[in-house]
This record gives sequence, structure tokens and C-alpha cells, in this order.
Amino acid sequence: MVNFTENPRHYTAEGLSALCEGLSQRFGDRFSTAQSLRDQHASTLTWLPAQAPDGVVFPLDSGEVASVVALCAERGVPVIPYGTGTGLEGHVNAPSGGISIDMSRMNAIVAVHAEDLDAVVQPGVTRKQLNDYLRDQGLFFPIDPGADASLGGMAATRASGTNAVRYGTMKDNVLSLKAVLASGEIVTTASRAKKSSAGYDLTRLMVGSEGTLGVITELTVRLHGIPEAISAGICPFASEQAACDTVIATIQSGLAVARIELLDALMVRAANNYSQLDLPETPMLFVEFHGSEAGVAEQAERFGEIAAEFGGGPFSWATKPEDRTRLWTARHNAYWAVGALRPGARSVATDVCVPLSRLAECVAETRRDIDRTGLVAPIVGHVGDGNFHVQPLIDMTDAGEVAACEGFLERLVQRALAMEGTCTGEHGVGQGKRKYLVAEHGEAALGMMIAIKNALDPRGIMNPGKIFMP
Amino acid sequence: MVNFTENPRHYTAEGLSALCEGLSQRFGDRFSTAQSLRDQHASTLTWLPAQAPDGVVFPLDSGEVASVVALCAERGVPVIPYGTGTGLEGHVNAPSGGISIDMSRMNAIVAVHAEDLDAVVQPGVTRKQLNDYLRDQGLFFPIDPGADASLGGMAATRASGTNAVRYGTMKDNVLSLKAVLASGEIVTTASRAKKSSAGYDLTRLMVGSEGTLGVITELTVRLHGIPEAISAGICPFASEQAACDTVIATIQSGLAVARIELLDALMVRAANNYSQLDLPETPMLFVEFHGSEAGVAEQAERFGEIAAEFGGGPFSWATKPEDRTRLWTARHNAYWAVGALRPGARSVATDVCVPLSRLAECVAETRRDIDRTGLVAPIVGHVGDGNFHVQPLIDMTDAGEVAACEGFLERLVQRALAMEGTCTGEHGVGQGKRKYLVAEHGEAALGMMIAIKNALDPRGIMNPGKIFMP
Repeated sequence: MVNFTENPRHYTAEGLSALCEGLSQRFGDRFSTAQSLRDQHASTLTWLPAQAPDGVVFPLDSGEVASVVALCAERGVPVIPYGTGTGLEGHVNAPSGGISIDMSRMNAIVAVHAEDLDAVVQPGVTRKQLNDYLRDQGLFFPIDPGADASLGGMAATRASGTNAVRYGTMKDNVLSLKAVLASGEIVTTASRAKKSSAGYDLTRLMVGSEGTLGVITELTVRLHGIPEAISAGICPFASEQAACDTVIATIQSGLAVARIELLDALMVRAANNYSQLDLPETPMLFVEFHGSEAGVAEQAERFGEIAAEFGGGPFSWATKPEDRTRLWTARHNAYWAVGALRPGARSVATDVCVPLSRLAECVAETRRDIDRTGLVAPIVGHVGDGNFHVQPLIDMTDAGEVAACEGFLERLVQRALAMEGTCTGEHGVGQGKRKYLVAEHGEAALGMMIAIKNALDPRGIMNPGKIFMP
Repeated sequence: MVNFTENPRHYTAEGLSALCEGLSQRFGDRFSTAQSLRDQHASTLTWLPAQAPDGVVFPLDSGEVASVVALCAERGVPVIPYGTGTGLEGHVNAPSGGISIDMSRMNAIVAVHAEDLDAVVQPGVTRKQLNDYLRDQGLFFPIDPGADASLGGMAATRASGTNAVRYGTMKDNVLSLKAVLASGEIVTTASRAKKSSAGYDLTRLMVGSEGTLGVITELTVRLHGIPEAISAGICPFASEQAACDTVIATIQSGLAVARIELLDALMVRAANNYSQLDLPETPMLFVEFHGSEAGVAEQAERFGEIAAEFGGGPFSWATKPEDRTRLWTARHNAYWAVGALRPGARSVATDVCVPLSRLAECVAETRRDIDRTGLVAPIVGHVGDGNFHVQPLIDMTDAGEVAACEGFLERLVQRALAMEGTCTGEHGVGQGKRKYLVAEHGEAALGMMIAIKNALDPRGIMNPGKIFMP
């Protein structure tokens, strides 16, 4: 089991007590230190141990967040932003104590500028909430991690999902944001212009900073028109290698695929069981094209030809919207579907990303490693970007199995790094991936990150214990 | 005339002399203090006065750049990275003295990874050099400022160009870079993976930082497949308003236009004269579509319909590749074509960017302002992004005209900011736009930038006097 030394608390019991009194006065019953609420705000979807905060506050706007941060800063008490708690690397844990800032009541859609293809939202708005709101206007927001995550949390972890191959990640789809810094100041990182060369890119600096530089309190996100035509389908393959080779050839051919997802045979079995599908239990690509009626038909045909070259197929279309929805819902539910394969076991969801040219090799080596190690661990991924997930199911009472899994995770990351990849394509660093940052970035680049962190948060109160080792 | 107080030099004549001796020893005739060379390295394409460096060095690799920076740091002497000297806001000036690091000999294309659609290049490689090299492999790099700029300079200023509406700007097309920091350390900002959530986005922090945080010594850039079919054409309009309205409707309709450029009547006249075209001298859109044969035909047809709704047309195609090249060469030569309208006058090339919904209004108000002020100033722009350029031609010996131009520039920026836009869409801040950063970003965000700058360059030797006021 992964254990982290609990960071020291840099505040006294008296300081905390005075802070809690201040927060109670300011926020009434929107601040609480009830144990059940605190525990709930440190729940995690993976095997990292929970570390509860000292209290939870529910602000309503940027000004209130600034008050919370200012009050905490006065006592040296950490703040931990909380969205939906669906992060996979311990982002909402409170290893040094502190106050969890729950954004669930900051869930207003402030403005939709249809002409500019952007929307201004509070950070607690979830991706499904935004898309439900936009649908009537013919617009959508493409970033879709498996969970119905909050946009603030998605920005903080630089999330992506199935559409990233076509629409990019959160870094490409946040135009601007507001954040409260450690000083209590509220910054706006950019205007609503689609592009700018006016100084440092604070937007991209905040996206992916996991709450360690500031608390995101508003986002201006890019929207896209719902395509005139959408076609989705599934294509079975004899091996993961053949599926990966098809992905590489598809991307290189310039086909503007909107989604291209690999599921290995075990993942397909999990999806069949959990989502009542009856897919052949063999490696498979889920694909989707966006465009005009003629355009998607042309692209689908060309994709079918490419797949056939690698022995894949037949490529079958989900022509009805409800069949398409069923397919993608099954894909989005992968995390829970995998969990159901081995009731009682803990899911250890992890991800890496490599250059596309190394994808087939990386997946194949990983499959051999899983088999050799004797793990139950489906592979599923956003393979158009070279990004894939492995989700070992671990009996946490079996020390040998836990150790075997730890060894596997270590080798997975080292394999991705050796192939010029990254230790995490979209889950973030949190607590779980901190130890890999030196190997990935080198001392100089990591030192640059730490210098920025120290300059903007000299007392270390912004989500401490995340990204950087204590 | 815009005057900047010369910043104080923080080094002694003895210090400089010792440094020059050290550089001569290390670099031989690749270091020079010849006046003509120094003057040439402070030349500028706009009206900002030239401020020559103390010497110029021509390194060959990252290690040599690191030596230059380390030697300069020892004496507190600034370093100013130099690409092709085609920046428009005084980026290569040396207001506090210092050593110009000329990247022209670091112009190797280190690797092309066709399977991964990326290339590794030294910073002195120019955009045309890269595209000439790539053509046989069916690949291209889309970012195209007017000049044949170096990729290092383009990254440093977050450049874009005519293709940005489809392919993004330098921020979207640099995967990773190497840079020498003020400490002399060489950092690599990211892996070659297409996406990552592993810590702060140092790549995007360096892109647009104009040499104030480090000297870029290598870039990994994203490539794109040359589309199967390209169609370009021109569409005349009765007014700039009608052209802008057509742009807005085109983008909103979801048409994946690759280029959509506005030229006002005066700009068309300049292009006709300079590039031997015979276009009707009326506001005009140059457009281009990329895709399959069927796809571009479909898109072109729909664009023609949209233009007709706003009274535009007829839309005429440049079907032959040589006609297309002639069109875009004319567009890229806009800066020089405008200059030729009034020989002896100085070009004051500036740009702003606003949300698309405000574009028509911003262009119309700017046109009225130009006419009222009595300037000769064509408008041309990457209007699909809400970005446009104005290029007043000024008789620098006429104090009244200079003052009138200064007033116009000030109003142009204030107008863009009032419309939720930015003071520069793609030219950068340099010296010319520094005074607008507080108004655009606010004290808190500008303070955040300065905190980062001070943390990474505590002695202020990295391209001082750019982005921030002294």
C-alpha cells in the first residue's frame, strides 16, 4: 500500500480553533467540522489512503473564496479545493491538514456567448451540467473524463478524455480563468480574445497546477458547434497490436477522427457485463467522426479500409443516436465496469502517455508485464493521443499482490518515460505520481516549477503535498 | 515619437571589457563588438528607436548558449536572444546594454518524427526552411507570420498568422522546448507525448515570454499532414462590416475554414501595386479550405452561400496552385506592400484582437478613427480569430502626424480592451505595448507575472526592458 509520510502541520490547535471560529462567523452553516463531512471530502477513487481536512467550507463566489484563503493564510492553514472528488491521484487529500473549499454551490453558468463560442462558468459546474444547458443552442463542450467532474477540477488537473484527439485537452479549451492566489488576491488570467501575445500565459500556468498556485473561481471555456453529422462505430481486432497500428495509420492519414478508443478483451468483457452490451470479447476500437453527412460517411469508409489492412473488422456502425449514446456511456463507465469484475478489490486506476509511434510497443510490453505479474488489469485508452489507462484490481489484504502491483506501476511509468512519454497523460500528479517528476522532467525543470511555486505561495498553504514531494 | 528611458546598465565598463575578453576567448570570431554588427542586431521593423547591444555572439548549440548566459550572469550583463530581427515591438533592442545571442547558426533540423507528426529543431530554423524540408514527406508546419521568422523567435513572441483559425498559434504547436535559464541551467519543458498532466506547463510559460525567462535553444513542434485538397479564393464585399459579418457567420456555422483574412480597400490597392495583382479595390476576404476533394468543394460552396447572404461575392477560386501561392504571397508581403504606398514614411505595424462578436464593431470604429485622424493606415487581419492589424504610414519628421498616430494607437488599444480583447493578438509586448499590461491584466495578474520573472531571473539579466516597465 502506498504510504505517504503525513506532512507536518504548520499551525497550532489554537490557530485552527480561532480560524474555525472565524469561518463559522463568516459562513454560518456553510462551514462545518463534522467528521462525516470531513471524511467525505477526502474520499478517493483509488488506493491512496484518505487524509481528511480539518473543516469544509461552501463558498458562493470569488470574493468568499478570497476571504477563506485570507483567513487561512493568516493562520498558516492550508486550503484544498474540492470539486466532485473524482480525482484519481489523491488531489483532495489533506496531508498537512487544512480547510477543504467545496465548490459545489459555485455551480452557476454565468454567461454563454454563442457568437464567440465561449461560456463563463463557476468552477463547480460539471461537464454534463454544461452540456445539458448548451444542447438547445447547438453547442457543446468536448472535454469528457469518465466521471461527471467539475470544470474547476478538470482545469486544475489538465483533464482530457475521449474527444481530446480532435478538440484538445483542458489546456486548449480554457480561454481564461479567475483564481484566488495565496495572497488572497483575485487574478484574471486573460481576456476573452481567442488569442493574445500580451505577457506570460497565466491561463496555461494555472491549468494543471492542481490547486498548488491558486483556487480557480471562474472559467471561460471554449465551446464548439454540435456537428451536423456524427457517426460512431466499433471495430474488433485480433490483437492490441493490430488495433494500435490502425490508430497510428488513421492519425497519419490525416483523418480528423473525433474519438478513437482502445478497449482490450478484458475491458470489453467488463463493459459487456456492466453495461449490458454483447460485443465480441476481443481487442476493439470505438471510433467517432464529426462533420457533414457526406464528410463523416467518407471518413468512416476510409477508416474501414485502414482497419482492414491490419486485419480488423468488420467495422459496424451505431447509426441510431441511442446506440451511440449507449456505446459512449459504456466507455465512460469503464472505471466502474472494471471495478465490478472483482467485487471487494480496490481499483488502482493509472495512466501514461507516449508518442504515437511507440504506442503499440508500449501497450504490448504492458500487456506482457500484466500477464507475467499475474494481475487482473484491463487496458483502455485514448489511443489517438498515445494515452492509455491500466486499472489493476487489487486485494488490499494480500500484501504480495499489493507489492506486485506497486512493482508493475513503477515499471509502467519507467517504460513510458523510456519511450519519451509522460508519467500521466491526464490524471495529474497529485500524491501518487510525485516521485516520478524528477525522472520525467530532470532537476532543472522541476527546480523551475518549485521556484514558481515558492514565489507565488511562499508559506506553502495552497494544496500542499501535491505535485511536489514534501 | 515613442521614447523609452534607457534603463541603467548594472555593470561597469571593466566588467563588460572582462566579459568581452572571456567571450572572445571562448568563441573566437563568433563573438564580435563591431559597431555595424551591433547596430544591425537592434534594427527594428517599426518606429521604436534602435538600441544596440554591446556585442553579438553566434553560438552553435545549447551548451554554448549556456556558457554565454553563465559568463554574462557572472558580470550582471543582460542577454538578448536574436532570431531574424523581424519582431515588431522592439524585442531585440538592448535598452540596458548586453550581449545579443544570434541564433542564425543554430539552424539544424535535428529530427523529423513523421509517425508522431513532430519535428525537433534548433531555434534559428525559419518557418520556410522547415516547410521546404518537410514538403517531400507530405507534412507542413502551419504557423506563418508575414516574415520568414525563426521558430525560436516565433515561440518567444507566441506568434501566429493566417492558419491560426484552424491550426492554433505557437502555444498550440510547440510540444516541448529546451531553454537556458538565468542560472545557466538547461531545462527541457516536456516530453514528446502529445499530452501530459505531469506538473506545471513550462512549455506554455516559455512560449510568449519573449526571452525574459530564458533563451530557447531547441523546440519540438507539431506537424500536420499536407491536406489532400486545398482550395483558396477571394470574395469582395461592399463594406468591411459585411466582410466581418460573413466571417462571424462562417465560424459559427462550424465550417472548418483554414484561413480567412480581411483586407480593406487600401490594403487591396497596396497588394495590387506591390504584388502585381488586379483585384477590385474594395474590402475583401481571402479564404482557404483544407480537406478531401469532396470536403473542400462542399465547404467552399457553403461559404459562398454565407457570403451572398451579406451581399458579398462573387466568390472566385484560385484553382491552380500557382495562383494560390500568388495570393498568399501577396498576403504575407502585406507589411512591405503597405510600406510602398508612401515611400519614405515609417510603418507603424500594430495589432489587437477582440472576441469575434465585437470584430465588426471594432473594425468599423477603427476605420472611422483612422479617417477622422487623417492617417494613411490600411487594415488587414486574421479575422477568423478576431485579430486585425493596422499599419499607419507616418512621416517621422512631422511632429503633428507622429502625435496623431500615437493618439490613434492609444485609442485602438483602449477600444480593444473595452471590448474584452487584448492589446496584442500576435506581435507580443516587447517595448511598445508594455504600458498597456496593467489596463489589460490588472495589478494582481501583472504582479503574478512579475513574481515569476523575479523568481526565475532575480538579477534581471534576461532581455530586460521587455514586457515589464523598468
